[in-house]
Amino acid sequence: MLAGRWAGDDERERWLQALRDALPEARWIVAPADAVARDEIEVAVVANPAPGALAALPRLKLVQSLWAGVDRLLADATLPPDVPLARMVDPGLTEAMVQTAQWAVLSLHRRFFDYAAQQAQAQWLPLPQRRADEVAVLLLGFGALGRAVAERLMAMGYRVSAWRRGGADRDEVQDAPLTLHDGADALPAALAQADIVIDLLPLTAQTRGLLDARFFAAMRRGAALVNLARGAHVDDAALLAALDAGQLGRAVLDVFATEPLPADHRYWRHPRVTVLPHIAALSDPRSAAQVVAGNVRALWRGKPVAHLVERDRGY
Amino acid sequence: MLAGRWAGDDERERWLQALRDALPEARWIVAPADAVARDEIEVAVVANPAPGALAALPRLKLVQSLWAGVDRLLADATLPPDVPLARMVDPGLTEAMVQTAQWAVLSLHRRFFDYAAQQAQAQWLPLPQRRADEVAVLLLGFGALGRAVAERLMAMGYRVSAWRRGGADRDEVQDAPLTLHDGADALPAALAQADIVIDLLPLTAQTRGLLDARFFAAMRRGAALVNLARGAHVDDAALLAALDAGQLGRAVLDVFATEPLPADHRYWRHPRVTVLPHIAALSDPRSAAQVVAGNVRALWRGKPVAHLVERDRGY
Repeated sequence: MLAGRWAGDDERERWLQALRDALPEARWIVAPADAVARDEIEVAVVANPAPGALAALPRLKLVQSLWAGVDRLLADATLPPDVPLARMVDPGLTEAMVQTAQWAVLSLHRRFFDYAAQQAQAQWLPLPQRRADEVAVLLLGFGALGRAVAERLMAMGYRVSAWRRGGADRDEVQDAPLTLHDGADALPAALAQADIVIDLLPLTAQTRGLLDARFFAAMRRGAALVNLARGAHVDDAALLAALDAGQLGRAVLDVFATEPLPADHRYWRHPRVTVLPHIAALSDPRSAAQVVAGNVRALWRGKPVAHLVERDRGY
Repeated sequence: MLAGRWAGDDERERWLQALRDALPEARWIVAPADAVARDEIEVAVVANPAPGALAALPRLKLVQSLWAGVDRLLADATLPPDVPLARMVDPGLTEAMVQTAQWAVLSLHRRFFDYAAQQAQAQWLPLPQRRADEVAVLLLGFGALGRAVAERLMAMGYRVSAWRRGGADRDEVQDAPLTLHDGADALPAALAQADIVIDLLPLTAQTRGLLDARFFAAMRRGAALVNLARGAHVDDAALLAALDAGQLGRAVLDVFATEPLPADHRYWRHPRVTVLPHIAALSDPRSAAQVVAGNVRALWRGKPVAHLVERDRGY
């Protein structure tokens, strides 16, 4: 079953076609399914489904998200508690996230936001040019996305470090050629050495509201925040205060507590805020459908399903 | 001798210090030099020097530019005709040019210019996401800069091709894993398949005015132009007409026929033109001084000097 909320019928059809192409041996049903169909559904492929969409599916064996973030799914009290839930780790989404991070870092490092502001004033003013190795980037989160972003930014010459809330095995990252900061105690020092902080964390009970006044005060004066993760990480009033005080030089925000961002929100018109409409990285039907097909076939064969969510961890 | 026009005394001092550090065995004089000093000068290191600055240097053996483009130097009738002239191929400048090209391509591919326009209207509107391999980039020019840009854009997954006016040996690029288009006859077909065209050509008699109405008409409808080379390549009236007609989707311009761009020029306020104040890539004193030192030492030892300009070719 394919269940979700879509930008339009075209988007739903594109996903359905990609899934049928990738897994022709399955029979695909688009939610809402009738009672007869509900009794047969083994796999639910979901993209931000309506609450309750996954209730009353007696033979359900796997919920496969099409998106990387599963915080909205986990907040649905009718989500069957015992059915495995898989996040999407889509090469297409990862590549798009890397692109957005590269664009944000280049824009900040090379002052392209400032040049855009200067253009609006017809002001011709070259600004000093720094080398990439003079720019320190801190990634918040070091999962599949954080690693891919780190690798590409390091290849571009940036000084990259990453902070993790903790909990991952050291072994997982022993080969990472970058500085890793672990745990809440390490966060202030990690923030203090960064020119650009990129948020790639999942939304969990521990990360909700993490980017608060204390967080911004720990950042280097004039540094920039890039939020590509979740709006609920951010105390918006504290962020605006830090921007207004010059403690933060700029915020590039793709995600917001309320989406779409209300038209009267200060972020839209703040001269040092860049607003993006949650487009940093979308799953690509062509590559993501292959990931779904791999997981469904693994399920059928009794093999391990990839990227299962640990519900107590929240991602 | 160090001769140039600088953004300020600080910039001149930074260059002088970097050159002294890189080549301490030389005696450095800042232009204008007195008559006694002029008789001793063997090497002139120049950055956009005043016309005539290189006249009457009887022992001059090498003119070393600090910038990649030498068109202004060659236009100086008092430039000694028999003294070798070297362009700057600075790893710092090359890297900065690669960064600017990456930023421009990402901004166009991922629609970040459009999102900036939407932000100004408080408009939340996600646009379709394309993969990098669905975006065709054509480089005009395939020298040191073009190759570096091509390599990085290909690593990012873009479909990259390059056009050369012709004249370079085939041997030079036989290992290039990209499509090469050679000569004026090949230009229209090369333009017709590109979503993004990046100008990296030198300014010569052959490239002056190359980007004219016919050039823009040969481009794919809605494609974008990125000019990181020279303003004199462009017929500005033809470019504005192509933008106004929707034949071009956007122009990202770092260089202009007159710089600074006059405050009343239409480019400043055109909704689909991005104006940069000639900052795509500056030579970096730290790395460029090493290049100068290498060339001066080669001269002293009778070894080949790197990146000599062929004056009849113009670069």
